[in-house]
Amino acid sequence: MRVLVTGGTGFIGRWVVKSLEERGADIVVCTRAAPERARYSTVLADLLKPDAAERAILEAKPDIVLHNAWCVDHGKFWSAPANLDWAAATLRLARAAKDRGVRRFVGVGTCFEYSWPADADCVEQSTPIRPTSLYGVTKDATRRIVEEFAAGTGLEFAWARLFYLFGPYEHPDRLASSVAIKLARDQAAPLSSGLAVRDFIDVRDAGAAISALALSGVTGAVNIGSGYGVTIADLAGMLKSAAGGSGHLQLGALPDRAGEPPRIVADVGRLRREVGYQPATSMEERLGQTYRWWQQHLAKAKGA
Amino acid sequence: MRVLVTGGTGFIGRWVVKSLEERGADIVVCTRAAPERARYSTVLADLLKPDAAERAILEAKPDIVLHNAWCVDHGKFWSAPANLDWAAATLRLARAAKDRGVRRFVGVGTCFEYSWPADADCVEQSTPIRPTSLYGVTKDATRRIVEEFAAGTGLEFAWARLFYLFGPYEHPDRLASSVAIKLARDQAAPLSSGLAVRDFIDVRDAGAAISALALSGVTGAVNIGSGYGVTIADLAGMLKSAAGGSGHLQLGALPDRAGEPPRIVADVGRLRREVGYQPATSMEERLGQTYRWWQQHLAKAKGA
Repeated sequence: MRVLVTGGTGFIGRWVVKSLEERGADIVVCTRAAPERARYSTVLADLLKPDAAERAILEAKPDIVLHNAWCVDHGKFWSAPANLDWAAATLRLARAAKDRGVRRFVGVGTCFEYSWPADADCVEQSTPIRPTSLYGVTKDATRRIVEEFAAGTGLEFAWARLFYLFGPYEHPDRLASSVAIKLARDQAAPLSSGLAVRDFIDVRDAGAAISALALSGVTGAVNIGSGYGVTIADLAGMLKSAAGGSGHLQLGALPDRAGEPPRIVADVGRLRREVGYQPATSMEERLGQTYRWWQQHLAKAKGA
Repeated sequence: MRVLVTGGTGFIGRWVVKSLEERGADIVVCTRAAPERARYSTVLADLLKPDAAERAILEAKPDIVLHNAWCVDHGKFWSAPANLDWAAATLRLARAAKDRGVRRFVGVGTCFEYSWPADADCVEQSTPIRPTSLYGVTKDATRRIVEEFAAGTGLEFAWARLFYLFGPYEHPDRLASSVAIKLARDQAAPLSSGLAVRDFIDVRDAGAAISALALSGVTGAVNIGSGYGVTIADLAGMLKSAAGGSGHLQLGALPDRAGEPPRIVADVGRLRREVGYQPATSMEERLGQTYRWWQQHLAKAKGA
């Protein structure tokens, strides 16, 4: 089974590729620059360029396209005009896939497509879709088009809706990383009140879940999350435990963001039962690994 | 006020341009082939080609972009993969417009974005959006993205939702044209039961309404229809009257299409009150003109 992976070298993509390898898939990674060393084939293509999608599909001849690539600049992606470019690129890729006989197309969406019920989990087929950012609107609208196109042409289509991530190589300003870094440096970690409940999943498990979805026959939207809601304060507390329990979390030192929803948690029924994926490692263990990864990373950076 | 019009030579576009001229706008038409004679400026650009949108905007330097172009092949456009290409082209055009300081972007949508309540008119801000064709889904999804992009960047955005059209130069296989042609040839006109209620508007009035919307400051979706629901049988009856009353309409000779909604009618409150547009000519008169246009067109075709 040959899988063409876009965004295969990014924060999530590297773990998607690793999991696809472990599952024995024949992988071709679509990348803008040739990697220095790679255990998999690559096609060089910048999907934002015209004809790149068509060329990548022609070269890779995949059975499955797993499309991770999108604009992800920390802080900026919410409203970046590049969201429009990535929507257009995704439509080109879906068309090229169908035109060239690809069997299955898997795209990556986000929990920010949903409205977030304060008292229930987000369920793929029933929770109202009500995105409020350009990123969320564009992901959702792109999904609507590709899903309808796929239904009309017999292309298999699935859509991985990602919840909150943490783990190795995350942007250092993001929540789990910034807390881990402060703790590893023995500095106080300023936080908001920390009452908001979120569904966090380790990026390695998210990558494995997306890979399982890609190789399955499951169609439509599938939440990629842990299924557990933890408060920001709890997450920080678990990182503090991983750091030996002596760190200083300053809950309430930062203002709560206006309009932050109280709860964003995935219903993972489809992921567990239909895709058959469940992480093998507990969240505490994953947060411990993440803390130690940052410790080593900072030590290396200091030594370098 | 300079307006760049895409699709300005098509069935609707020609009347949009005519009305813009009458309203004194400085018009630049974006077209794939130079017209033999034109009273307005043109930029030659195929919007499906990369960089064409950017180039058209740079050349025309418009204040307003009025984007009519889309795939419209009779019968095929409902499910044509080209819908994806036009969505991508529209996103490129919207981005280029914003990047180059365009003030206002007006796109053209469709009544096929709505669910159709059996007992009420379609209202822009309250009737549920539930498209069921690739055409409808793609128009709606494109609107979602461009509307959110515009809101975040200060680009003015409006979206003309077209209802049912009739008039000169319509595809001869479409309802009003096919009946008019049969009547003009003194042939029996086979029809379905004709009970479905639709909102028909003459394409000249639809063009004038879109032109009025483009030059207004109204934002968001605006229905372009007559506001009157008539049955297919009534429409055919009005054409028969225009033909002198002696034609033969075979109601029930064709099967009703499965799943046809009983009623698709525009609420035109926004168009009347906010845009300030109301057709000057009655529907009976417009159907009479349309019948006579087909008579002359057929006579000319015979003479040629």
